[in-house]
Amino acid sequence: MEPKRVSDSSVVMAHQMLPEDANPMGNVHGGVIMKLIDTAGGVVAMRHCRGNAVTASIDRLDFLCPSYVGELLFLRASINYAGKTSMEVGVRVEAENITTGEVRHSASAYLTYVALDRAGRPAPIPGIILENEDQERRYREAEERRRIRLGQACMEGPKS
Amino acid sequence: MEPKRVSDSSVVMAHQMLPEDANPMGNVHGGVIMKLIDTAGGVVAMRHCRGNAVTASIDRLDFLCPSYVGELLFLRASINYAGKTSMEVGVRVEAENITTGEVRHSASAYLTYVALDRAGRPAPIPGIILENEDQERRYREAEERRRIRLGQACMEGPKS
Amino acid sequence: MEPKRVSDSSVVMAHQMLPEDANPMGNVHGGVIMKLIDTAGGVVAMRHCRGNAVTASIDRLDFLCPSYVGELLFLRASINYAGKTSMEVGVRVEAENITTGEVRHSASAYLTYVALDRAGRPAPIPGIILENEDQERRYREAEERRRIRLGQACMEGPKS
Amino acid sequence: MEPKRVSDSSVVMAHQMLPEDANPMGNVHGGVIMKLIDTAGGVVAMRHCRGNAVTASIDRLDFLCPSYVGELLFLRASINYAGKTSMEVGVRVEAENITTGEVRHSASAYLTYVALDRAGRPAPIPGIILENEDQERRYREAEERRRIRLGQACMEGPKS
Amino acid sequence: MEPKRVSDSSVVMAHQMLPEDANPMGNVHGGVIMKLIDTAGGVVAMRHCRGNAVTASIDRLDFLCPSYVGELLFLRASINYAGKTSMEVGVRVEAENITTGEVRHSASAYLTYVALDRAGRPAPIPGIILENEDQERRYREAEERRRIRLGQACMEGPKS
Amino acid sequence: MEPKRVSDSSVVMAHQMLPEDANPMGNVHGGVIMKLIDTAGGVVAMRHCRGNAVTASIDRLDFLCPSYVGELLFLRASINYAGKTSMEVGVRVEAENITTGEVRHSASAYLTYVALDRAGRPAPIPGIILENEDQERRYREAEERRRIRLGQACMEGPKS
Repeated sequence: MEPKRVSDSSVVMAHQMLPEDANPMGNVHGGVIMKLIDTAGGVVAMRHCRGNAVTASIDRLDFLCPSYVGELLFLRASINYAGKTSMEVGVRVEAENITTGEVRHSASAYLTYVALDRAGRPAPIPGIILENEDQERRYREAEERRRIRLGQACMEGPKS
Repeated sequence: MEPKRVSDSSVVMAHQMLPEDANPMGNVHGGVIMKLIDTAGGVVAMRHCRGNAVTASIDRLDFLCPSYVGELLFLRASINYAGKTSMEVGVRVEAENITTGEVRHSASAYLTYVALDRAGRPAPIPGIILENEDQERRYREAEERRRIRLGQACMEGPKS
Repeated sequence: MEPKRVSDSSVVMAHQMLPEDANPMGNVHGGVIMKLIDTAGGVVAMRHCRGNAVTASIDRLDFLCPSYVGELLFLRASINYAGKTSMEVGVRVEAENITTGEVRHSASAYLTYVALDRAGRPAPIPGIILENEDQERRYREAEERRRIRLGQACMEGPKS
Repeated sequence: MEPKRVSDSSVVMAHQMLPEDANPMGNVHGGVIMKLIDTAGGVVAMRHCRGNAVTASIDRLDFLCPSYVGELLFLRASINYAGKTSMEVGVRVEAENITTGEVRHSASAYLTYVALDRAGRPAPIPGIILENEDQERRYREAEERRRIRLGQACMEGPKS
Repeated sequence: MEPKRVSDSSVVMAHQMLPEDANPMGNVHGGVIMKLIDTAGGVVAMRHCRGNAVTASIDRLDFLCPSYVGELLFLRASINYAGKTSMEVGVRVEAENITTGEVRHSASAYLTYVALDRAGRPAPIPGIILENEDQERRYREAEERRRIRLGQACMEGPKS
Repeated sequence: MEPKRVSDSSVVMAHQMLPEDANPMGNVHGGVIMKLIDTAGGVVAMRHCRGNAVTASIDRLDFLCPSYVGELLFLRASINYAGKTSMEVGVRVEAENITTGEVRHSASAYLTYVALDRAGRPAPIPGIILENEDQERRYREAEERRRIRLGQACMEGPKS
């Protein structure tokens, strides 16, 4: 399996936020942004392995400022790290106020995806060709997060 | 401000998964589950402070097994930790196959919410009364995650 | 087929109402509540017979007060009566204002479901074990409604 | 207030059923049909009083056969009875298989709506001019249902 | 194949506009009306050929005035012209303010549909029986548009 | 008002098609693509005039091949022509099969938008700076379509 460049799978998704995406306060619902982040990350993962991939975890997701109905959301997603069958994807969300042109960094996230073969078992994935310092830094940071994560467990016990 | 018990704000939300909730493979879309997790966590946060609260971050979200259209999803959410203006909520997701009765633990997450006053500034929140060992353990673990989190930053740089 | 207790199949579903659930006046759309009531009732019917079940009729549905966007709707559904292949389910809807904690009884309904086998024909269902006076009263009242219903017909003629 | 003819407010709504309207078995979700029935009935009520009107109750709703994705649903709704501030609307649902032309009577319902003034209080409504025997029969039957209904109560007690 | 009358396939679809149909300014989203126009046109095409049909093009769609949440949209669609395997359908959209009874002509469109057989290839369709001057005029105008259209191409080149 | 370059307002929107976007045959609903085309075109129009803009017409929209659930749709939109208060936007739609990487040109459209001031009246818009031969050709072709369009009328008469 040939390794691939980060740019081979990276994507920019753009969605305009409509009233149906609002939360009860009238801003964009955080859950709507989470769904878009997961979709953008999944596109990168499937493009990298040109096969099926499922979300294993959100390793971190930060909301930096609210988004508003009418704004254009840009989801910039690219692969940070590739293991044997799993990979970390980073997603940066920006919100553009279309009438003023102002753009704000509204959220960022790291997610882990696992490639699956046709029988639904974890499948090997291509490695990454790192082409610049940013990509190298992201790779190292993702590797570090992975180490911490493997030592953690999010097994919320039964809640009655 | 009187401290409150964990049980005063905990909630069990139940939703049946419909075809409109599916991903292209026909399973429940991970982003749909994320939106439900965020909604359940937000209900707990707003109940604890009986005011407005917004999602600051997902500190960890693990998918343990896929969910299917037709299943009943239970989202069990309760507060783990309360700081000055922010709180951590834990959410456990279970999926029930309604025709067989089988229940599986399908996802778990920790999220941080910030209470807001009417002007949109962070607002003080009640403390928590811990009533059993599980609640004490969750409190300690949340405190530990908070320490790690404050030392981390998820500031995905510009992706071109 | 072993008879089952009412509590074996009863369910509490909880949904937060979002702007996408509003009617043109800004309150929660009555049709959205009807869909949730039907879903909750269907879950009880399918749990009672651990098989497929379809809605045969709404025998009565009363709206007692409006619900608002942002509120948490609780749908408490349990089986009232089990015939040979059909059963009556009662659903009580409560709306919680999350910021004040106030809870109002907003709607109630009785629905009849029919169990179906894999070929889509009516299938026999378990009987009910009545365990307290409330359940006995509901059983008698459902039996009475069933008698009236079998003597009625809702066959709205052609409307041109 | 001038009385109005039944035909002044009657409506035929037509919707094609899409995959997003399906239940987990792949047929049209009963709750989707309920929402359409409520919408059609509400249009008739608001047209009759040319003002705001809310759903007070479903007095009866029968599903006669399932509907399928791709079919065209016709909702024929007209006013049966007008009281002082409330009115009964009958809705007949037909499903057309667009490729064969076959039409089936799939559901029927009676609903009661209450007219509201701008302050949200019950408002007086016009009477009905009955123009044929069908309309006279429906009026008598609705009057009879109203009598029964006022003697009934759907006050599902607390379900724990 | 027997030719068919225009009235054999024409349809009036009626939909009430809800908050979920709004654009960021609070009016009905133009894209929602386009989807309804396409659905109404597709129903006419499938009824005319009693088989499958897909949208080939919108040859013209004019918005004449905005529509508002709460209004009742009527989509009046009928076949204008039938070629060998394709047909033109005209759709007129009217918006009724339900509380005042005022009706406005809000949009009009011409669309071309192609009939498909079970293998997905273009399939022959019945001719049209023209029964009045309006239908004859629409037929001539559609024939003229078809002539112009076959000489045009909408092949937007690559946009970088 | 300073004229602007085409690239100042052009946008690429990307959306993954989900089961909720399907038509009854299981392909992507043409109306869903129309709504996305209108949204992308509207973003370009609003960016060009940094103010409000509404869809006046679709002057042409061609579907070249079907799109499928799971595919990534790219909507490439840019301004072709700017008049005094109205502008033509061209939109090219491409569908990427994420697992194979194959990309197909699936639709193209020309739409006209009108800029509005705060009172809802047509507002003057900036001119366009044409920077290459493609942009000059598109400008001339749009000007030609505009001439034809002003001589046409899509005023579908009453359909009974």
